[in-house]
Amino acid sequence: MTGVCVIGAGLLPFGRHEDSLLADMAIEAAFLAIRDAGIAPQAIEAGFFANVLGGLLFGDLTVGQSVFADLGITGGPVVNVENACASGSSAFTLAYNAIAAGEVESAIVLGAEKMCVPGLGLLNSGKNELETRLGLVTPASFGLRAQRHIHEFGTTLEQLALVSVKNRAHAAANPHALFRDPVTLDEVLNSPMIADPLTRYQCCPVADGAAALVLAGGKTAAAARRAINIDAAILCSGSYQTPVDLVRWETDRRGCELAYKKAGLGPDDLDLVECHDAFSIAEILHYEALGLCAEGDGGRLVAEGATRLGGRVPVNVSGGLIGRGHPLGATGVAQIVEIVTQLRGEAGARQVENARVGLAHCMGADRQGDARACTVAILSR
Amino acid sequence: MTGVCVIGAGLLPFGRHEDSLLADMAIEAAFLAIRDAGIAPQAIEAGFFANVLGGLLFGDLTVGQSVFADLGITGGPVVNVENACASGSSAFTLAYNAIAAGEVESAIVLGAEKMCVPGLGLLNSGKNELETRLGLVTPASFGLRAQRHIHEFGTTLEQLALVSVKNRAHAAANPHALFRDPVTLDEVLNSPMIADPLTRYQCCPVADGAAALVLAGGKTAAAARRAINIDAAILCSGSYQTPVDLVRWETDRRGCELAYKKAGLGPDDLDLVECHDAFSIAEILHYEALGLCAEGDGGRLVAEGATRLGGRVPVNVSGGLIGRGHPLGATGVAQIVEIVTQLRGEAGARQVENARVGLAHCMGADRQGDARACTVAILSR
Repeated sequence: MTGVCVIGAGLLPFGRHEDSLLADMAIEAAFLAIRDAGIAPQAIEAGFFANVLGGLLFGDLTVGQSVFADLGITGGPVVNVENACASGSSAFTLAYNAIAAGEVESAIVLGAEKMCVPGLGLLNSGKNELETRLGLVTPASFGLRAQRHIHEFGTTLEQLALVSVKNRAHAAANPHALFRDPVTLDEVLNSPMIADPLTRYQCCPVADGAAALVLAGGKTAAAARRAINIDAAILCSGSYQTPVDLVRWETDRRGCELAYKKAGLGPDDLDLVECHDAFSIAEILHYEALGLCAEGDGGRLVAEGATRLGGRVPVNVSGGLIGRGHPLGATGVAQIVEIVTQLRGEAGARQVENARVGLAHCMGADRQGDARACTVAILSR
Repeated sequence: MTGVCVIGAGLLPFGRHEDSLLADMAIEAAFLAIRDAGIAPQAIEAGFFANVLGGLLFGDLTVGQSVFADLGITGGPVVNVENACASGSSAFTLAYNAIAAGEVESAIVLGAEKMCVPGLGLLNSGKNELETRLGLVTPASFGLRAQRHIHEFGTTLEQLALVSVKNRAHAAANPHALFRDPVTLDEVLNSPMIADPLTRYQCCPVADGAAALVLAGGKTAAAARRAINIDAAILCSGSYQTPVDLVRWETDRRGCELAYKKAGLGPDDLDLVECHDAFSIAEILHYEALGLCAEGDGGRLVAEGATRLGGRVPVNVSGGLIGRGHPLGATGVAQIVEIVTQLRGEAGARQVENARVGLAHCMGADRQGDARACTVAILSR
């Protein structure tokens, strides 16, 4: 039996797309994925569209329907999904479910975000909540996690900053990344302080962007030229336990465990990882949740070079959110596009040698840094 | 093998809930559904939240996560869905898929909308499109359909108006409806003209509201006291063919055909129908798409009394959108709540005698009146 596969992937470079509407970017990315899949748009039976800010910023509703209709993908189920920073990867799990349930045999997953607009400012999520008014905006919550990690495990400021050095070096080799210039350890440490100890280069930048995947099962998957298997597509959410353990991310660990179990694999089987490095400390916490190292050892893992291109388990060879940029709805899809590109051996200068299994991890965190949505997908060739 | 079932249903009365936030209404409806299901919230493995205007009006994002966490439904997959007027029923199909795919064994579907707010005015969907600027707002597009139906099939103004008389009479028997007072044929015909020939009482009113369903498969469904079977949960979208045939709604027909095929049933098997009567003409077109009568005979069907409570196939015994009100994200869920209530024999004064099979039909139409999303669910006991 053929499982659910990715048969096409497309990505618009992340950055400023001042002359493009949200729908324009989405159409372009989708077109790339469809062409890559080598099938007619009319053959795609369902569409899942992920976006966070379109309604809030532009009054856009049912954008997915407009985009898919323009592409010639008509008639089938179309759904618009919002799940914070994990919107794109949540849409991916829904497409996976629809195929696994036998409702459709193919689907397109499309994530797009336009956020480089005047006056965006701080995103106003939770603006009316007491914690936010008292200063617990998202960077502050990650600053607290970093402080706690330093306190509990002896993680150093340099180790934190090395996450950004690594991801910016990776981004420099990725033509689709927002930042194409590497940064030094000193530059990261000396960039302006955002939320102590996190400096600016340790916080991911906003961007405009779009990414798309074509998924298939059954005969459509069997007929595809270069199908990549989806071994797990997990979505989970927070348990909202209090007090919050700032360095042991319960949702993160649970999502990873579920994915490993579903795939019948473990951390030692991974050839590469894309994870949600919204802040440098986040990547370190994800190392630990993913089982790439022991609890508390995340800082040392990056310092050893284990997670850089050429290391034991390269993480965010795309540049990650810190290097490639973070257009909210597009990110979760773009991570999987990177895994697919790597498993096909088509990643050029940033290719992970002989990559056979990859994991994409995405997370939408709330002000307290708990996960509103955590997704983990495992893919293999 | 036990299929996917509805094991709990809850509905907040539709109307003005001035003192309630969107999340407050959602929590209340969800609580009713969970209590009705007779299971602990902690046992519900996934949550699907439908809403249209929260981001646009209030800047609300990831509302589903907030609501489900407050209810104690934590840890599992949670997704926020927007699909215009069919948001709630689209969320229903996603929950169905997740259970059918074996990803989870239970899920809650929650639709909520708060739209009775100062200055809402006309919804701005498509405000930048040429057709909208030229006057083709939603009521106008349905006015055109009504004119064409009159021209082509001899449908009368009285037949159109009788849809509203019927649905307002049904609503008068439904304690959860916005309008509790029936209206006469003269009152409908003489209410202010909105889009010729559609008068005000032939256009559905906005409302605040929330509705919820608990779905289950496997052992959870088998253990439920009063499970209602889901025989089909179809979502489809428009083919966007031009020129548009104003009286033969291609998406509508296709959605219904798919549902009948999936359920192995036909229109003669239906004991009741909830359909998307956003305007009186819409209900008449849906009769024809559903196969309740021949093409062009919709006006005569309502005039004969076939679709009123006690008739051959009662339609919108809840009062429909015209009588119960139309809080966008809640409507598609509320329709299925009504079918479940009727199939259980718990509908009181508006009970359809010996109801065994019911169909819920919902549609999000664009300015041209084509379907952005059309859902058809068939349920049976």
